Amino acid sequence: MSAAGTLTVVGLGPGDPRWLTPAAQQALAEATDLVGYGPYLDRVPPQPGQRRHASDNRVELERARFALDLATQGNRVAVVSGGDPGVFAMAAAVFEALDGEPAWRAIPITVEPGVTAMLAAAARVGAPLGGDFCAISLSDNLKPWAVIERRLQAALAADFVIALYNPISSARPWQLGAALEIAAAARGPETPVVFARAVGRAGEAITVARLAEAGGVAADMATLVLIGASTTRLMLRPGEPPYVYTPRRCEARP
Amino acid sequence: MSAAGTLTVVGLGPGDPRWLTPAAQQALAEATDLVGYGPYLDRVPPQPGQRRHASDNRVELERARFALDLATQGNRVAVVSGGDPGVFAMAAAVFEALDGEPAWRAIPITVEPGVTAMLAAAARVGAPLGGDFCAISLSDNLKPWAVIERRLQAALAADFVIALYNPISSARPWQLGAALEIAAAARGPETPVVFARAVGRAGEAITVARLAEAGGVAADMATLVLIGASTTRLMLRPGEPPYVYTPRRCEARP
Repeated sequence: MSAAGTLTVVGLGPGDPRWLTPAAQQALAEATDLVGYGPYLDRVPPQPGQRRHASDNRVELERARFALDLATQGNRVAVVSGGDPGVFAMAAAVFEALDGEPAWRAIPITVEPGVTAMLAAAARVGAPLGGDFCAISLSDNLKPWAVIERRLQAALAADFVIALYNPISSARPWQLGAALEIAAAARGPETPVVFARAVGRAGEAITVARLAEAGGVAADMATLVLIGASTTRLMLRPGEPPYVYTPRRCEARP
Repeated sequence: MSAAGTLTVVGLGPGDPRWLTPAAQQALAEATDLVGYGPYLDRVPPQPGQRRHASDNRVELERARFALDLATQGNRVAVVSGGDPGVFAMAAAVFEALDGEPAWRAIPITVEPGVTAMLAAAARVGAPLGGDFCAISLSDNLKPWAVIERRLQAALAADFVIALYNPISSARPWQLGAALEIAAAARGPETPVVFARAVGRAGEAITVARLAEAGGVAADMATLVLIGASTTRLMLRPGEPPYVYTPRRCEARP
């Protein structure tokens, strides 16, 4: 084993291999070791001699330390993330682990960006992210709900389009409903809300609802939710989910 | 010319062809007509028989109407955007044009997502977008400065990492300085600010500054600016720009 270990944090994009960048593809092909959440590793075609280290989707910091340790042993390690690795994914964990251990600082580290879920979800329905927008993880595993609620309120006051990552799971069943209620108190009942499930993967499903009925739409861990701004518009079309877009132009509100 | 015209809004990614998705590549290859801002078209390798319709970077709505009209004439039109077409780019203009003209609604329209500038900029320095974040266009051509200022204030109050698109141009020389001053009034002087110019293209330059000195850093139209949250950290490394990351975990603030 060579002493020149490296670590690349690779974004797979939303799932469709046609959205995997050539740079990410190459990083995967050159790796001796793949580290990541099992379902993400399953998306990478097997390669002879390449080792796979699957984990569950928690303990990200431990997984990052494991990967850095593999790299110090001379391996070319690819840490695999869905979407973009810098958006609610593994890149932050890798740099946090690095911050805690100066001995790892000599490892050459690369981040290979990818198409993050909100971009793919937006593309499926039109251009809902056409104006200013924000991305909030609804998971309160890593931050208190009070912080999330404060950020939602600020985003609503600023009239951002809001992308909600990690909206719901069996361990966090009520947070999405609470977020939609907070939104409904600030935005009109006709505001378009997009539920984009598993975009680019088996089981893809897109639902566009009005905010007043959005609480009744099913969602799961694979769903990305987009809440429109006050200017976001909906265009009906026969036999397909409506188009949703946010004009770039906006006027001052009172 | 066949009657079955189509329109695809294609994201080229930040510029490096290794970040162009296979799906976007295919959409470009299949197009009879490319429509877009000249420098974006210049990134697409010429193809015999394919027509190119270059424009300047304004009048997006006119360009969108021109592209839709070409599609109604039976052409396979690709509207070319840098980065992701849904983020401060052409997709919103296409759907706005469509909204104004029901006769165009029968055209099959696809949006091909891409790696948007903030993801590539973040990847170059670590994981600054690791927490909740927002994206704001600093251009006041399409919205009043008062709206931008209100959104900046809300984003600062919510402790979002802030990505600033279109930070400066010869016609808008003071907006970035004003935004950095607003940020400096709300966040600590040590807050990391990333200036990522032309990531993935000739002339790429990355500068990481502390917020107190950020006003003195040169920026231009090709620059993406990232202002850290209160939790964003900086790790110095010899001979390279420092790493910047935002831990996913955050505690409630008073």
